[in-house]
Amino acid sequence: MAAVSGEARAGVLKTPHGEVETPTFMPVGTRGSVRGLSPAELRAAGAGVVLGNTYHLYLRPGTGVIREAGGLHAFTGWDGPMLTDSGGYQVFSLSRIRRLSEEGVEFTSVYDGSVHSFTPELVTKAQEEIGADIAMVLDECPPADAPYDYHADSMRRTARWAARCKAVHDRRDQALFGIVQGGLFADLRAESLRRTVETGFDGYAIGGLSVGESREEMLEVLGGVAPELPEEKPRYFMGIGDPIGVLQVIALGVDMFDCVLPTRLARHGAALTSRGKINLKNARYRTDFEPLEEGCPCEACSGYSRAYLAHLVREGELLGARLLSLHNVTFLGRLCSEARQHIVCGDYESWMSHRIELYASGEARGVLE
Amino acid sequence: MAAVSGEARAGVLKTPHGEVETPTFMPVGTRGSVRGLSPAELRAAGAGVVLGNTYHLYLRPGTGVIREAGGLHAFTGWDGPMLTDSGGYQVFSLSRIRRLSEEGVEFTSVYDGSVHSFTPELVTKAQEEIGADIAMVLDECPPADAPYDYHADSMRRTARWAARCKAVHDRRDQALFGIVQGGLFADLRAESLRRTVETGFDGYAIGGLSVGESREEMLEVLGGVAPELPEEKPRYFMGIGDPIGVLQVIALGVDMFDCVLPTRLARHGAALTSRGKINLKNARYRTDFEPLEEGCPCEACSGYSRAYLAHLVREGELLGARLLSLHNVTFLGRLCSEARQHIVCGDYESWMSHRIELYASGEARGVLE
Repeated sequence: MAAVSGEARAGVLKTPHGEVETPTFMPVGTRGSVRGLSPAELRAAGAGVVLGNTYHLYLRPGTGVIREAGGLHAFTGWDGPMLTDSGGYQVFSLSRIRRLSEEGVEFTSVYDGSVHSFTPELVTKAQEEIGADIAMVLDECPPADAPYDYHADSMRRTARWAARCKAVHDRRDQALFGIVQGGLFADLRAESLRRTVETGFDGYAIGGLSVGESREEMLEVLGGVAPELPEEKPRYFMGIGDPIGVLQVIALGVDMFDCVLPTRLARHGAALTSRGKINLKNARYRTDFEPLEEGCPCEACSGYSRAYLAHLVREGELLGARLLSLHNVTFLGRLCSEARQHIVCGDYESWMSHRIELYASGEARGVLE
Repeated sequence: MAAVSGEARAGVLKTPHGEVETPTFMPVGTRGSVRGLSPAELRAAGAGVVLGNTYHLYLRPGTGVIREAGGLHAFTGWDGPMLTDSGGYQVFSLSRIRRLSEEGVEFTSVYDGSVHSFTPELVTKAQEEIGADIAMVLDECPPADAPYDYHADSMRRTARWAARCKAVHDRRDQALFGIVQGGLFADLRAESLRRTVETGFDGYAIGGLSVGESREEMLEVLGGVAPELPEEKPRYFMGIGDPIGVLQVIALGVDMFDCVLPTRLARHGAALTSRGKINLKNARYRTDFEPLEEGCPCEACSGYSRAYLAHLVREGELLGARLLSLHNVTFLGRLCSEARQHIVCGDYESWMSHRIELYASGEARGVLE
């Protein structure tokens, strides 16, 4: 670890496709493309690790096609670090489950209703074929409000699945991360952590949060887990991308996090700024000829006015979603980079409070929404 | 004129925002954006002149906003040559006409049904506000199958409208082009040409073709008009973008042409290649790891395989439409540039026959569709 400030950590993630300074926000390229952005633009936006979703890639175009292409790096043209999830989250959130057993999970495809089975062994091998730098174990992610017994059984099965993933994983140039589950129950989280760390992985994710619980509950659970993880291994919080949340999980010692939020917001015409999220469909932006965010080096902020971006968004022009995606990914990249500087300087907490206050100020003053 | 080969011409179009070698294909940025492409990409694709549609820009965001932004160049970030149509074509093809009179045309907006009137004076001033390098006169574009008397009346009214446009046009840094109408009737075309040239414009467009008539009829009418236009003035064929058609109108002495085809095809997953148009949704491309077109310098052809592009297209990823748009615009730009070389060499006709044969060969051999 390069530096710590409270629980917050500044480090360097080393992968076969390059090193990434942490904390780092990882944009999501669900189907082998971060919506609307080219690899060169992701690079320019400061993206370190890019995510792919095994669930989607397994179904379309199929891992066979990706293997034939020489892996997901060659297929997509992104030559930087890459992480694939195991598909577990998508199976449980997008598909109809036909059967869930010790062996694995049988589900119907969200694309065409065809029936498929994921086992720990299958998703591990699929991720080896896809060839990302970091693969994830198969886990079940139960709803936050599922009962205690359900969470307990599920977490223990996830722990057994993780061990099976590790047993068959033999791609030396690919890291494998375990996932801590257990819902909002402190004892289950502690047990999950202990079991996952005992199995032993190259890094540890915290899953099953940001799935419907309150932000306070989420932070409480995370605060109980993250600092207990092995200090020398990367810590990945699955699924957070709002600027305040990002700063809060960094404060608790998270190194990596991902979310579709910045690109999804962009497609709906919203942009992240230091003074809050702004909705470019708001009438006031029709004649606002200022850049989106003063000082932002992204293409959207250097070549265009808010008025033009607002026009593109209103008319549903592809360029609008694309420029806003570029900006939102750049915004989160810069936020992480600034966070890192303040961790190194040792004043992360006070800087974070200032940034959160500033971010919230837009809305509070009625100037931005 | 730099060179001629038969009726085909190689020239240079000079505008306040730069010079463009002709013949030149002009991509269409209907609403102030060529679907999915940034100005830098248009530049890289070899685009010379970019089109804007006055009808759309007048209604959204409104010419007032564009004037406030400092004109369409400043608003959109495209600093090269730009042409706006008068909106006539869109009024007659997209809107419900409430009243058509000597004064002008009253219509309902395609966006919200609101009522607007276009007169020659209004569209001329609107185009001055938009500030393109080249503006067009207001014309009526009747359906190809309208009766003779309708075409005659319409063409004469268009000629009178053109004179009114010229009378109020006073932006010195903006060229104004007249439009020859007259449907498929040789005598009406001749009269339209005579009247339009008598009024006198900086360039001449041939309108009212590619609107439902056969390709043979179109070429016959064009062959009667284009060579009769003033030799020293640019000749603009409104609305053609298929590679064979482009080569055929160049052969008849056209210097400029526009069409939404290359970007529309791209959004539907089709790419233009030397050996014909290919539909990337076809199953054979799922595992075709060759580039779209060998030797093409565009981003789609240098960074990605057909298999990846096919995947993006099938999944409706924004990047797919964008990369194919970039390729199709690049393809037409290169085709025009090659055409120019062969006009200069004096072997345009034989080169064109070869290219048309090659383009048609894909489909004939059952290799491409």
